[in-house]
Amino acid sequence: MNYFDLQGIELSAVDSALERFVREQQSCPSGAGVHGRSLWEEVLEHTRSGKRLRSRLVMLAACSNGPHDHEAAAAVAAAYGLLHAAFILHDDVIDRDDMRYGRPSLHAAHAAGAASRGMSDDLATHRGYTRSILAGDLALAAAYRLLLAGTADVPAPAREELQRILHDTVVTTTLGELLDVELSFSPDQATTGDDAGDPREKALRTAELKTAVYTFCAPLQSGALLAGLGADQVAAVGRAGTHLGMAFQLEDDLLGVFGDPGAIGKPVGGDLREGKHTYLMATALASEAASEVKDLLSRACAADDDELSRINLAMRELLTRCGALQATADQIRDHARQARDEIAGAALPGPLGDALAALAEEIGSAR
Amino acid sequence: MNYFDLQGIELSAVDSALERFVREQQSCPSGAGVHGRSLWEEVLEHTRSGKRLRSRLVMLAACSNGPHDHEAAAAVAAAYGLLHAAFILHDDVIDRDDMRYGRPSLHAAHAAGAASRGMSDDLATHRGYTRSILAGDLALAAAYRLLLAGTADVPAPAREELQRILHDTVVTTTLGELLDVELSFSPDQATTGDDAGDPREKALRTAELKTAVYTFCAPLQSGALLAGLGADQVAAVGRAGTHLGMAFQLEDDLLGVFGDPGAIGKPVGGDLREGKHTYLMATALASEAASEVKDLLSRACAADDDELSRINLAMRELLTRCGALQATADQIRDHARQARDEIAGAALPGPLGDALAALAEEIGSAR
Repeated sequence: MNYFDLQGIELSAVDSALERFVREQQSCPSGAGVHGRSLWEEVLEHTRSGKRLRSRLVMLAACSNGPHDHEAAAAVAAAYGLLHAAFILHDDVIDRDDMRYGRPSLHAAHAAGAASRGMSDDLATHRGYTRSILAGDLALAAAYRLLLAGTADVPAPAREELQRILHDTVVTTTLGELLDVELSFSPDQATTGDDAGDPREKALRTAELKTAVYTFCAPLQSGALLAGLGADQVAAVGRAGTHLGMAFQLEDDLLGVFGDPGAIGKPVGGDLREGKHTYLMATALASEAASEVKDLLSRACAADDDELSRINLAMRELLTRCGALQATADQIRDHARQARDEIAGAALPGPLGDALAALAEEIGSAR
Repeated sequence: MNYFDLQGIELSAVDSALERFVREQQSCPSGAGVHGRSLWEEVLEHTRSGKRLRSRLVMLAACSNGPHDHEAAAAVAAAYGLLHAAFILHDDVIDRDDMRYGRPSLHAAHAAGAASRGMSDDLATHRGYTRSILAGDLALAAAYRLLLAGTADVPAPAREELQRILHDTVVTTTLGELLDVELSFSPDQATTGDDAGDPREKALRTAELKTAVYTFCAPLQSGALLAGLGADQVAAVGRAGTHLGMAFQLEDDLLGVFGDPGAIGKPVGGDLREGKHTYLMATALASEAASEVKDLLSRACAADDDELSRINLAMRELLTRCGALQATADQIRDHARQARDEIAGAALPGPLGDALAALAEEIGSAR
């Protein structure tokens, strides 16, 4: 997936807003020490890495309807970039992911540094986690602050709505992350931790809460507000965004098992090792292949990288055979279709409607 | 230390503001699931526990000068309570503290629960950390949101100043926590991690950043703003607060080694195990007893609770003999005196001036 329509969206104003904000923070008395400067630098680097979907989506929507407050749009786009950095920094600790953006994740890099200075492995790992927890706290705080400070000239009702959306998004995503972890498969437990309800439904709900809202729904709604779109259009953009976000997360789940490690920037199989309860896995665990799937997941928990690679290959074969791959691809296409329907029905400004339709088409036709 | 003058400060309006806010959050679609409800409940419980110094200090200052916006004061006081909860929840992970408020800390309680359901110790411990990281994220987000939403009727300049103080406080405390961890003594390393500067000065700086600002300075300044005090008085209250906060943290460092476990709600010696680079320890490490101190700290890292208790007793004797206890007590008295001087020079409203002077007297005369 290239999201090629989005890659052309200009982020120079967002980069300026970010840079200015971080330099201001670093010039405060508490931010000026060597520790403060380096932690802020790490937050900035994370915010500028990756595909920067959330910042691009804010700018796409904000710039779609003629004259608008470009500085405010850039600040909001930067705030969603900071929010993503905050989630990434804490999630990499929570999921114990040692790779991010094709290089060691922040906690892994700091753990390696501490170990090389002679610290025991256990203590070094924990020092790495500490760094990533604190960097994430700083990024979360910065998202609230930059959105507030950067929208001072936005009329009060829209500004308050932007603040409400940001906060609801933080809460939703945090609870989605909790759900994601609590539902994870554990080989020590008889079930996936919670017996009530269809596990596939719960996996879809988790994807919505932990990813779809903050990646697509909230950035697009915020941009639409800044573009001055009406309440009905903002709501429709939000619904379309949620469907796009669902398709995006389901595709990401597939890539976690079927992807090319070079392209996704981290080893495949990490989701298997953590027992992630994705729609893909929930479907497989509800199929006649359930016991074989459980067996592979149990082995994945304790596997080294070579073994994990072999388990992942076996899992690909199993997920294809039991229909879970197909069921997930169907879900992706279905959400992409619903996104297109929402977009078509909302009479959005041309550039926004066209870009979102193209995005839905691209996501929906990948499988 | 009883902080008896503060214990009489009424928190019922703060409790109402907290309760109303959390119930609102729990009624949002994403907060209404069983996971959302329980995580919010844990945040609420943490915010209501302990001495609640920060909330009391906001209310003390806000109510000191006659008519004021009592609902706004309660919201700001609640926000500082939430902020403290956020820091506690993350710090207990960072410091691997298994006890808090005389009972298992949140991560320890969840780890024990997961282990009792058959999860391996390593995975269960990490699940506990995850829970505490996410609860802390929620509490941090809630602090920003409640302060913003609860001060809607406060005139713009004061409201913006309240927002700025909150954000600067979050950044300062986060960087202070980083400094605290990075400076910790590690027996695997030749030094305390950073060679530049006097370690005692760095320990004092850490105490200011990680504790004094968010515990005393910011709550008092925020309350003073809400009370309508002038800029000079707000600034003087902030300086007095920083000195009180320094004395408070230095006293807390002493209690960590010399305290009664029943009174402080957690085992003594935890700071030793984590190699906390307090002023107390930095002074000992700069004395002729340095090698004996290092030896005890090295043993503390790997000690079980019984052994830690013996090491702690030996450390008491050593800290007394080498003068570090006395030097710390001198610092406490000196900061209390500077706080009293600031208070006396600021012509504060009677109730505020009297309460702060009594507090400085109490903290300064404890040693």
